[in-house]
Amino acid sequence: MEAPSVSGAPRHPLDPLTTQEVELAARLIKDHAGTMKFKFNCITLKEPLKSEYIEFCIDNTQRPPRQAYAIIVENRTSSVFQCVANLAHDMSRLVSWEHVPDVVPMLTPEDCSFIENIARADEQFIKTCNDIGITDLSTVCIDAWSIGHDHRWGRDRHVQQGLVYWKPSASGNQYAHPLDFYIVVDTQTQEILSIDTFDCEGGERGKVPPICHNYRRDLLPRVSSSEHLKPVEVSQPEGVSFRLIGNQLSWAGISMHIGFNYREGIVLSDIRIQDEMEQKERTLFYRISLAEMVVPYGHPGFPFNRRHAFDVGEYGFGFTTNSLKLGCDCKGSIRYLDGIVPTSEGSTSTIKNAICIHEEDNGILFKHVEPRDESAVLARDRKLIVSQIVTVGNYEYALYHIFTLDGTYKFEVKLTGILNTTNLKGTKPTYGTKVSDSVVAHNHQHIFSLRVDPAIDGSKNSVSQCDAVAGTAPLANEADALGNAFHHRITVLKEAQGVDYNHATSRTWNIFNPSRINPSSGMPTSYKIVNNQCPTLLARPGGILAERAAFASHNLWVIPYSDDDFFPAGRFVPQSGRKGTNPKNGMVTDWVGHKGCIENTDIVCYIQFGVTHFPRPEDFPIMPAEDVSVMLRANHFFARNPALWVPQSST
Amino acid sequence: MEAPSVSGAPRHPLDPLTTQEVELAARLIKDHAGTMKFKFNCITLKEPLKSEYIEFCIDNTQRPPRQAYAIIVENRTSSVFQCVANLAHDMSRLVSWEHVPDVVPMLTPEDCSFIENIARADEQFIKTCNDIGITDLSTVCIDAWSIGHDHRWGRDRHVQQGLVYWKPSASGNQYAHPLDFYIVVDTQTQEILSIDTFDCEGGERGKVPPICHNYRRDLLPRVSSSEHLKPVEVSQPEGVSFRLIGNQLSWAGISMHIGFNYREGIVLSDIRIQDEMEQKERTLFYRISLAEMVVPYGHPGFPFNRRHAFDVGEYGFGFTTNSLKLGCDCKGSIRYLDGIVPTSEGSTSTIKNAICIHEEDNGILFKHVEPRDESAVLARDRKLIVSQIVTVGNYEYALYHIFTLDGTYKFEVKLTGILNTTNLKGTKPTYGTKVSDSVVAHNHQHIFSLRVDPAIDGSKNSVSQCDAVAGTAPLANEADALGNAFHHRITVLKEAQGVDYNHATSRTWNIFNPSRINPSSGMPTSYKIVNNQCPTLLARPGGILAERAAFASHNLWVIPYSDDDFFPAGRFVPQSGRKGTNPKNGMVTDWVGHKGCIENTDIVCYIQFGVTHFPRPEDFPIMPAEDVSVMLRANHFFARNPALWVPQSST
Repeated sequence: MEAPSVSGAPRHPLDPLTTQEVELAARLIKDHAGTMKFKFNCITLKEPLKSEYIEFCIDNTQRPPRQAYAIIVENRTSSVFQCVANLAHDMSRLVSWEHVPDVVPMLTPEDCSFIENIARADEQFIKTCNDIGITDLSTVCIDAWSIGHDHRWGRDRHVQQGLVYWKPSASGNQYAHPLDFYIVVDTQTQEILSIDTFDCEGGERGKVPPICHNYRRDLLPRVSSSEHLKPVEVSQPEGVSFRLIGNQLSWAGISMHIGFNYREGIVLSDIRIQDEMEQKERTLFYRISLAEMVVPYGHPGFPFNRRHAFDVGEYGFGFTTNSLKLGCDCKGSIRYLDGIVPTSEGSTSTIKNAICIHEEDNGILFKHVEPRDESAVLARDRKLIVSQIVTVGNYEYALYHIFTLDGTYKFEVKLTGILNTTNLKGTKPTYGTKVSDSVVAHNHQHIFSLRVDPAIDGSKNSVSQCDAVAGTAPLANEADALGNAFHHRITVLKEAQGVDYNHATSRTWNIFNPSRINPSSGMPTSYKIVNNQCPTLLARPGGILAERAAFASHNLWVIPYSDDDFFPAGRFVPQSGRKGTNPKNGMVTDWVGHKGCIENTDIVCYIQFGVTHFPRPEDFPIMPAEDVSVMLRANHFFARNPALWVPQSST
Repeated sequence: MEAPSVSGAPRHPLDPLTTQEVELAARLIKDHAGTMKFKFNCITLKEPLKSEYIEFCIDNTQRPPRQAYAIIVENRTSSVFQCVANLAHDMSRLVSWEHVPDVVPMLTPEDCSFIENIARADEQFIKTCNDIGITDLSTVCIDAWSIGHDHRWGRDRHVQQGLVYWKPSASGNQYAHPLDFYIVVDTQTQEILSIDTFDCEGGERGKVPPICHNYRRDLLPRVSSSEHLKPVEVSQPEGVSFRLIGNQLSWAGISMHIGFNYREGIVLSDIRIQDEMEQKERTLFYRISLAEMVVPYGHPGFPFNRRHAFDVGEYGFGFTTNSLKLGCDCKGSIRYLDGIVPTSEGSTSTIKNAICIHEEDNGILFKHVEPRDESAVLARDRKLIVSQIVTVGNYEYALYHIFTLDGTYKFEVKLTGILNTTNLKGTKPTYGTKVSDSVVAHNHQHIFSLRVDPAIDGSKNSVSQCDAVAGTAPLANEADALGNAFHHRITVLKEAQGVDYNHATSRTWNIFNPSRINPSSGMPTSYKIVNNQCPTLLARPGGILAERAAFASHNLWVIPYSDDDFFPAGRFVPQSGRKGTNPKNGMVTDWVGHKGCIENTDIVCYIQFGVTHFPRPEDFPIMPAEDVSVMLRANHFFARNPALWVPQSST
């Protein structure tokens, strides 16, 4: 038997691994590795196969095997292995062990932690700082970044780059003082491979930006604001409306399992909704997670052009999750879940309050006033929010999975934190915005990929494209005398493919179940994808960035479900690109290449959305949050408004 | 002197007319009209000229003349007159009186109130009901609508149409039982002109929809929901953070005047913001209002195709404003303002609590965690919301003017209420969705026009279009070796014109002041228009709907400011269309036709946004609110984040 939960009950098959389970997996792997010296890159739950999980839902004595998946990196050679261990009490053993050539795994927090110390002790690095007048090396900060692409290294070496800043005081703002060079470091051997100064042909170095723009309250000048913000207090004196048992959450007829892993952070699984009219529970989504994202920067010059941050696949949204604090990050009556992430030695580290679960009032759910007697009907809406916040270098992403009483699911991201700044020579940057003397913030995009494994009334689903189109009958003809005719054109997608939003037709997509017909409308039951905040990837086809971020080249991918296809930019993202990589490291474009049928079958959708960011001075020295979202909305799923049960406010 | 406010202080020049002022204006007009019999269509504040108001801001002893604007309709002839009265105590008199030929004014609530009674007493109407089995005429409801366009009438008669429903009980839902005919009525003579049954060639009448879908809690079956929503309480124990003196509101450095009229509802004027860095107040917008909206329906058949609801210009968002109730419409610590609307006799009617002013917590304003010591900086954002809710027939629009601490203004509309339903013969509607037996809800759009009169650091402004474009250097060339280059292309608009959103380039527009340069970026100070929820008007050019709703044919209009150009579909909207109308009733397309310069001058923007609505069964019998918004965001307006003064949460 697998490790029981604290309460003694067996853990849910989708529950994250416990520390004991991680340590058991590590022991099994170490035993197998023998004398080989290595570091754990990750140890995480190997989720049960979908078929196994569905069987368990029907008969919960049929528990799927509890397994761990791990990636390890050999110290000397940087060779990468992946393995699976069975954790069942009576049959714990390693079930697979595989060398994966030509790939580089994620940079763990530990991988990112040494660069500052080795640089500060490096003679060439010290000289590079001294040459621009910095002699106290303790004031030099380095942010470790994945390399994106640097033509000087292949995948044999695991390299990372360091972005270098000067931090004038302990709580000062390093990003107000970007220096004029980056460094490159070998992640495994921890040696500096290159110091790359910017645009230095004439030998002219950049100057250390002179003005310190701070953002911490204690370092800011006192503001003579006569305004004062009085507190807004939110409370639930009778307690919250949701129930959380272990990792299983239910609220207002909606239920789900909340998972968490080092890579995707929050994973919502087995999302169902109670249909009050049909008096039964119906399935909506098998699994939802933020599967990938990319931040392509728009400056083409070396070494700026190697900043292609894949924040999920290269750093991990579990690893980078914040520990949250009541009244700051969240307000109201909160329940938290901790997050457990693996360490390189094969144990775990706990992120206290990693996941926030709370309700919010959401304004009007519906209202109508009968003008004949002025009687009003009004119900207020409620949000259930499952959220986390990550810090990836300079940026923060607050990630909100939001459910409302009409059955809508919305994934919202608030982008905040600090602009990635670069040392500026000159005054008129072409590819960015000057935000202070000698400081430029380069243009960039944030393109997220939300992986939605749908289960609209069961696992056999299809996707159709819905376009609003005007009539075509001749005007003034009786068929359309006033020219007002319009209807929707529905196109069912047949084969695995990527498709794009069309603004001119207000395009949406329906994930539908062709076997279930809505009794009111006669249309198949469906959820509609509303995705109009979806910028085009501006990196050009043929370039390596577009190759690496190929997932971002379409706003929606629909592919047949496969047990292995989770990560649209590949399982191993750092230093990826240029064809001929390991087929075990396939991307969504590879899966689409197989052109499988996506009609009336088990399918998966990757929904891309995001923002194109031309920085503003207002985003500096710290960015006011900007939000972006995508929505899945019941569309012929219910026979009528599913929220009619919600209490109405008296009028 | 004008009528003083309750406190005895002179009223602000933009304050709505008081009842005494309306009655004084009515008396002056009646005196002038002599024996002519007429009804008041409106009496409202004639706002001071912009030049007069600006003078008053500099020297508040220079008070603009207090004036009223009125439209009247002669009883016998339906002739329309507009007039202006001076209300100053010592010089009250009528200053203009003008016959306006070939126009039809708005339908007032009084104009819409008689149709049910006259129809119920009409022999032909009674027979039309009897023929489908309805004998109790008190169960027949009629919603009065503007006619849109009906080829049988010009503008000499003021006509309206009635949409006919059966309401089986006092609190039952009429929209569940649309009948198979509309009627046409003369608004002035109150006679029925036509009874138009649908698609009745074979003499076959539609059946009365059999199923009653109710939405009032007392009529719904008891739901066996085990879920219960516990209360969420919001309070401000120390009071609100804003100050409201008369109609002048200030909050967190932002100040404005709140006006209200029978047509636009809320009008925000003279919006300014305190720049904490520059230690001075800066102007943002001279005036913001919802100037028009249209709901074109997509069924081309007669008489469905005459539903072109212009809800602002045909019914008035002041006239249709709800009286709000604490805890229902709004939550928290609220301040209300009443709304005063004119009556046909020349007095006023008061809408209690017409305008809601309140604050809300708005989640994270900014956050950054320093990974080196895990110290976090976090400030929470706040919304200031000035809102109203209107009921126009079956629909409700909740209108929110929202300001946040980073200086952003957002106008958000929540659409709720009840679908406009129509009697359905057959089962597969082409232009709508069957929502119940014999009930169809037709496809439609909601396109709003937000009028923004900008004053970015003064009244001389320009507008530029900002497009995100990829680099063009050959790939693999050093200029863009990885293909990641992108930048913005800025195009300054020179002449009055309409322009459109471009999704491929993530297009935004900057309203900028060419004479004020941001000290950080070197760019002109500006506010950015973010408008990507802006469907194309689907009515086809050449048709009368496209002609009447020409304002909706572009997502943004920029025109030179003129004292008269307020209403983009014309001042007189009902029965408009077909060229050759009164030049005094110009539309935005006429103003653009003059091709005036819009560079570095006083300009006005009309921003169109909205939704295309293919009804869902989930929208019936009452619609879960759907929201849509447009945003104006500081963009190189401030030298840095303007919200650095906001208290940070302790961590």
